[in-house]
Amino acid sequence: MATGTLPLVFSRHKVPLTLYLFIYMGLLHCQQFIIPFKAPSDCRAEQFFDISSLSCVSCGPNQRRRLSCVCQTGYQTLTTDKMSITCQQCPIDKPVCAVYLTLRYINCILQPLRSVFSNLTACQALGNMCVMNMHSFSGVSTDACGLFNTIFRSKASLSSTQDISYWRANLPWLYYGDEPGLASRVLQTDPVPTGFSFRGTKKNTDIRLLAAVYNVRGEFLRWEPVGGKNLQLCPQPATKQAAAFSFGTAYQESVKLLGSHPEPLFYDVFMDLGGGENPKLLPLPTLVLNQQYSGRFINQESMRNWYLSRRMFLIDMLSGREKSLSSLPKVIRVASSLVPRTQEGQVFPPLMVVTYRDVPITDINTQTVSTSFAVEYEMDQSEARMKTDTALGVMGGVAVLYSLLKTVSWKRRISSTDTLVKFLFFYAGDLANVFFIVTVGTGLYWLIFYKAQQFVSVLLPLPPQEEKLVTYVGCAFALKAVQFLHKLFIQVSVDVFLIDWERPRSKTSRTVQAAGEMKREPSPVSIWRTYFVANEWNEIQTIRKISPTFQIMAVLFFLEVLGFSSLALRDPWTTLQRPSEAYTPSYSLTLRYGLAATLWLCIGLLQVIFFTVFYEHFVEDKIRQFVDLCSISNISVLLLSHRCFGYYIHGRSVHGHADTNMEEMNNNLRREQESLCGQRGLLPNTDIQTFQVALSNLLRMQYDRIQDSISRRNRPSRLTDTTMGHFSEPQCKAYHTMNHFLASVIDHAHPDMDYIVKDKLMFERVIGMEFLEPSEKSIFYNDEAHSFSNVLFYGNEATLLIFDTLFFCVVDLGSQSFILAAVLTYLQQMIFSFVRNALGRRNLAYKTLVDKRFLI
Amino acid sequence: MATGTLPLVFSRHKVPLTLYLFIYMGLLHCQQFIIPFKAPSDCRAEQFFDISSLSCVSCGPNQRRRLSCVCQTGYQTLTTDKMSITCQQCPIDKPVCAVYLTLRYINCILQPLRSVFSNLTACQALGNMCVMNMHSFSGVSTDACGLFNTIFRSKASLSSTQDISYWRANLPWLYYGDEPGLASRVLQTDPVPTGFSFRGTKKNTDIRLLAAVYNVRGEFLRWEPVGGKNLQLCPQPATKQAAAFSFGTAYQESVKLLGSHPEPLFYDVFMDLGGGENPKLLPLPTLVLNQQYSGRFINQESMRNWYLSRRMFLIDMLSGREKSLSSLPKVIRVASSLVPRTQEGQVFPPLMVVTYRDVPITDINTQTVSTSFAVEYEMDQSEARMKTDTALGVMGGVAVLYSLLKTVSWKRRISSTDTLVKFLFFYAGDLANVFFIVTVGTGLYWLIFYKAQQFVSVLLPLPPQEEKLVTYVGCAFALKAVQFLHKLFIQVSVDVFLIDWERPRSKTSRTVQAAGEMKREPSPVSIWRTYFVANEWNEIQTIRKISPTFQIMAVLFFLEVLGFSSLALRDPWTTLQRPSEAYTPSYSLTLRYGLAATLWLCIGLLQVIFFTVFYEHFVEDKIRQFVDLCSISNISVLLLSHRCFGYYIHGRSVHGHADTNMEEMNNNLRREQESLCGQRGLLPNTDIQTFQVALSNLLRMQYDRIQDSISRRNRPSRLTDTTMGHFSEPQCKAYHTMNHFLASVIDHAHPDMDYIVKDKLMFERVIGMEFLEPSEKSIFYNDEAHSFSNVLFYGNEATLLIFDTLFFCVVDLGSQSFILAAVLTYLQQMIFSFVRNALGRRNLAYKTLVDKRFLI
Repeated sequence: MATGTLPLVFSRHKVPLTLYLFIYMGLLHCQQFIIPFKAPSDCRAEQFFDISSLSCVSCGPNQRRRLSCVCQTGYQTLTTDKMSITCQQCPIDKPVCAVYLTLRYINCILQPLRSVFSNLTACQALGNMCVMNMHSFSGVSTDACGLFNTIFRSKASLSSTQDISYWRANLPWLYYGDEPGLASRVLQTDPVPTGFSFRGTKKNTDIRLLAAVYNVRGEFLRWEPVGGKNLQLCPQPATKQAAAFSFGTAYQESVKLLGSHPEPLFYDVFMDLGGGENPKLLPLPTLVLNQQYSGRFINQESMRNWYLSRRMFLIDMLSGREKSLSSLPKVIRVASSLVPRTQEGQVFPPLMVVTYRDVPITDINTQTVSTSFAVEYEMDQSEARMKTDTALGVMGGVAVLYSLLKTVSWKRRISSTDTLVKFLFFYAGDLANVFFIVTVGTGLYWLIFYKAQQFVSVLLPLPPQEEKLVTYVGCAFALKAVQFLHKLFIQVSVDVFLIDWERPRSKTSRTVQAAGEMKREPSPVSIWRTYFVANEWNEIQTIRKISPTFQIMAVLFFLEVLGFSSLALRDPWTTLQRPSEAYTPSYSLTLRYGLAATLWLCIGLLQVIFFTVFYEHFVEDKIRQFVDLCSISNISVLLLSHRCFGYYIHGRSVHGHADTNMEEMNNNLRREQESLCGQRGLLPNTDIQTFQVALSNLLRMQYDRIQDSISRRNRPSRLTDTTMGHFSEPQCKAYHTMNHFLASVIDHAHPDMDYIVKDKLMFERVIGMEFLEPSEKSIFYNDEAHSFSNVLFYGNEATLLIFDTLFFCVVDLGSQSFILAAVLTYLQQMIFSFVRNALGRRNLAYKTLVDKRFLI
Repeated sequence: MATGTLPLVFSRHKVPLTLYLFIYMGLLHCQQFIIPFKAPSDCRAEQFFDISSLSCVSCGPNQRRRLSCVCQTGYQTLTTDKMSITCQQCPIDKPVCAVYLTLRYINCILQPLRSVFSNLTACQALGNMCVMNMHSFSGVSTDACGLFNTIFRSKASLSSTQDISYWRANLPWLYYGDEPGLASRVLQTDPVPTGFSFRGTKKNTDIRLLAAVYNVRGEFLRWEPVGGKNLQLCPQPATKQAAAFSFGTAYQESVKLLGSHPEPLFYDVFMDLGGGENPKLLPLPTLVLNQQYSGRFINQESMRNWYLSRRMFLIDMLSGREKSLSSLPKVIRVASSLVPRTQEGQVFPPLMVVTYRDVPITDINTQTVSTSFAVEYEMDQSEARMKTDTALGVMGGVAVLYSLLKTVSWKRRISSTDTLVKFLFFYAGDLANVFFIVTVGTGLYWLIFYKAQQFVSVLLPLPPQEEKLVTYVGCAFALKAVQFLHKLFIQVSVDVFLIDWERPRSKTSRTVQAAGEMKREPSPVSIWRTYFVANEWNEIQTIRKISPTFQIMAVLFFLEVLGFSSLALRDPWTTLQRPSEAYTPSYSLTLRYGLAATLWLCIGLLQVIFFTVFYEHFVEDKIRQFVDLCSISNISVLLLSHRCFGYYIHGRSVHGHADTNMEEMNNNLRREQESLCGQRGLLPNTDIQTFQVALSNLLRMQYDRIQDSISRRNRPSRLTDTTMGHFSEPQCKAYHTMNHFLASVIDHAHPDMDYIVKDKLMFERVIGMEFLEPSEKSIFYNDEAHSFSNVLFYGNEATLLIFDTLFFCVVDLGSQSFILAAVLTYLQQMIFSFVRNALGRRNLAYKTLVDKRFLI
């Protein structure tokens, strides 16, 4: 009994699943360890079943096959006279047990002499003791593994079993060699000669594992299929347990075992390769993480140092007994997990990773011991990672150029010095897009190629391999947030002025009769049209090309009601509704992200199409309505998003007057509908009302001068009360000055601040930059696309949609709850919409002098 | 072997759980069947364990206790010489088996002679055969149950075992008596002397069941706690299985069993009442639904006819073997469920309900057999049902009165004849409220009293008992929908007119200079203020006192993210987040409804409080804003929801003019803020601007006359083009006439259509009806509460909130998915809001002649 190592209590009992894999090419072609499957019943009459080599061996001369009696647990065979044995209770204290070990050793050593028969079990028993000692040895030959290795070396001259050099005749196969790098050769050189396929006629997802079961005395008990009875200790319905051996399904079960267990059993695990008449088995290597090699935990180091082994046990309540076998154990030893892996359509031999844990026993009847069993599939992700990084690098580089272009364009539209800051803002947005494209591409790639593959070619990244993706998504979100806030800030500080074209009606009559009549004020031009236009402009600040709430609801509907979220489970099936009795694997973050982002973008796109193609044509188009309203109300809108660049909506009424009563308004509308009057365009006989404008510096300076007086609201004037929220008389005067100035500029009344109207070149449109500089004359570019909506939410749908998508996904990655993500996304949209409206309203009131109370 | 009944294949295998319970009071006090618990090891040296009575019995003179050897399955004991037995293979064909049965019968009959010992097992074996025959007998004594009953009757003279008259000495207890009504006395007279408590120091929720286990040969094997090893055949983690015996948790498991099973075991189930030194057992009656009594399935009839029994088996692969015991069975027989019930703090003996099913075997190795195990708790719900019905009746009656009152009020406000139809509409709404209150009350009652109780006093209604509640909820929803649609229809057909008080500015100067000057049109009054007011009125059509989307999101957040939905599970626990390894019972519809409705109402109420107390005071109050806008724009609004009843918003500007430029508007606003001008009220020196108006018939007739001309838009006039959407000149004239007429009425310029302003009596407010009839003069009631919002969504929040609640709950009851309910509720809100907006806009344009294009 290897009681010497018992005080070692390992605190961790879950298996770390990160394995560093490298592809070795052109190296030694390793021996493919495949053996034929033989059960005792397969042996012919003159053969016996050699439990060491698991094969049928012919009996010697004058010998015949028989089944022998064995002693019970705790008893050892004393004498054997071919027909009967004598059993004696096992020695009860350690020194005697050491003697027993030595006896087994001697029996095993003597084995080649073939005075054979029960000595086969002696070697097995010695091996089992080594296994109970977690395969650890220190080079000193006094422990079980040391003794085993001494015998192993002594038999080097004999032929090896089944042509496998690590499996010596009459000995159990406990170790692979300790050559550095052997582990990767064993695990990664030759794929398993079985093809897995997820669908189609050749559908094959069954992993069939077989175990040769031995008891602690080294007797071969039976062949057992691996499953619910042995490695899977958690009581679960058979349908759930079967999922563990369905290829591609990540499986995890944990259980607390109660009470006592029978004597330990030892398993040599093989993979059943099928083969009809001549079934073949592939022995599976085991990695015991607790295994010590001269005091080092070599199996927790890099793969190069791994020392693979075979044979494992699940629960050992034997070696924890002190003094006597009949005493209660002080500790028991448990645990297991299984990690098969694949590489590009070829599945390499599964590796069993075992961690044993010593559990000190306090009360054997009530105490529980937790153990877990997991199946993970791993693929070398370095190529995918390299592709991702390459894409990021290339696109990041292109983004630099694009951001530079934007900065140049911005610099032409405005004269400022903080160019670097601006570049960083632009670059944040572009880099966010790069991260977004790469991450969504990755997610979508896994979603499509993993979930839709027929023959197994890709396997999902394991949770630790997903960390990089999560980081990228986080970067995309953070950068997008910077871009979004930057745009928000620009939008709520845009310069806006409403130019009223209406002139007092009585003006003409006054000049005619000025002489003979008492001086009379002309009836004032009503401000209500301006109020109306300002109010409408205020209302379209946060309208979008999609309905954001519908978006959330639709995504929730698909994910949680139709069950699309099942697509993110770590198994290869595409069924949406899983029956409750089926095993539900954990979620893959990659798939969740790919699924959520794709769904969000698709529904968003469908909504944009619906709203732009159908809704705005047949129900209402708020942007078009606003332009029409400008025209009907005889009010133009000048929007300056940059210092010398902005948008102009020409709203001069074709009827000359709009400030009139109902009859005339109706008449005007009817006349226009019947085309009895001119067209609405800025140029004669055109109907283009919307322009991008590049202002000359002179014009802008004049604008700024007047605007200064308008904005001077906080300076209390001498005459008026300092009631806030009202406008002083100089402000109103400045307003009229501005109105008059801008109207006269549009009317070409200022030769030094004149403008020309032209079409934008296609290339100018594409790169979003103007080539001509408005040095002498300002330039009005025809713009039928209503690009003035760029200063509204409406014109920035892409940014908003991506921001919402990333917000949703980031919350989901953090919480694994689509519902929480939906709720928080809704709150986020509500808050930003509220902020945008409030700040936009304040800006509008400040810039146009329209009292806030009319912006409702 | 009772092979005679084998052809009976029962198609149904789930147990119907509807049990008709009646409370029998003052009847025979039935014997409480409680026995002391004895295990074989409890017997003293001179005693033996009598497996029939499950008690220790003293050995006779010259006898000593011993354990005897028994034959294997398929073998029968031939001779016994006190020390050894001879086993012979069982007879292999039926005739011989009948002989065997008769042998057992004779052995059992001879038992009183006490030449004993193995004859005890003979009677048990005979009993087991009767159990395998599902306790059925036909009076003919050739089958097992018939033979058993013959013996049972023959032993009437002997003393009964354990003082229970149905348990005769040396015989197993198979039947309760067949007196009509005995079942209800056994089940409902004496409660179990164990108190269950869900929390606190005396927490006790464990139901401990014990079973005496026998094999088919009648040998007593052991006492077993009922649980994972026996009745619960579904492999589940122990934590889940334990939930079955946690009092109050509805439990259900189904499993498909595979392959062959060992010989049948027979269970006599007892409830362990504890009792320390002298443990007591309560035998549980069993109801075998397949049991036949002279060909009738009496246990599927009413409880009065039930014939309770004891002893059951789970899987019988024995009696399905034809010809020989070594042949494979043709059918196997399976299944069970368990139904304990309670009544007001007292738990009556649990009843085991068993349905056996014969499964024809096609391939014993691959075929699966489904079986289920369930625990249900039932309480007599007739009192609760009566209370509900009483509440419905009383409140329904009150609702009739209330609806009558409304109808009378409505009749006074309008003169029409279809009073009955109107009454039905009102009654629909009131009855919906009654149903809603009763159902929410019921749901809340169960939620609070079931989930929060410490000592067990109420148990949830079973699914079939919930049907009535679901029907009531359906009624509430249907009626509420009628009310909602009715209100919607009224709202989109309300009469509205905007009275413009503005008069042309040049009017005075024209009259002064009319003589000496060329005739000049006065500058027209701008229509834009009217457009502005109409546009704002259009915008507040569907605003509400809550944010409907936030409502949905908040409810989803509580239910699905915080896990409140766990409160609707059919167990007594109030933990929100359940660990995945815990058993999750099914949902109770009652609790789901109570939970969802309560949560919806609570969050709605909180929102209403937030919006009315905080938001409308500190952010914006759209209704107040609209009233202010009327005043600033010099426009009054007359709304007629009934023919002679409606609302008036007095918007006459205190400055005389509002159609002016920015300076004057600013001045006006400032002067008003500094209280330099009059107050806004209709009466001098008041500021009440909003009124409820009861119009005199004369006024209304005049109004109708003018309105007729306005509405005549579809009649093409001779002069104008018939372009739709424009208003003809006569219409505009009629508009001016109406404007002038209403303004002069408000100005008291029509002595025959004058009005008085008064306060409404408190009682008038409460019952919503006016006492004075506006026969001579119209009456304007001061109304500071802005009750004109009754023609908007805003004033009908209660109806909308309840409608939404019911919609949400109805979808959830149908789909058991809160998320689907949320999504559909959102769609419903969106659709109705869209419809209301579109129709309201059309109505507004139609009634006020404001072109639709200005209602944006």
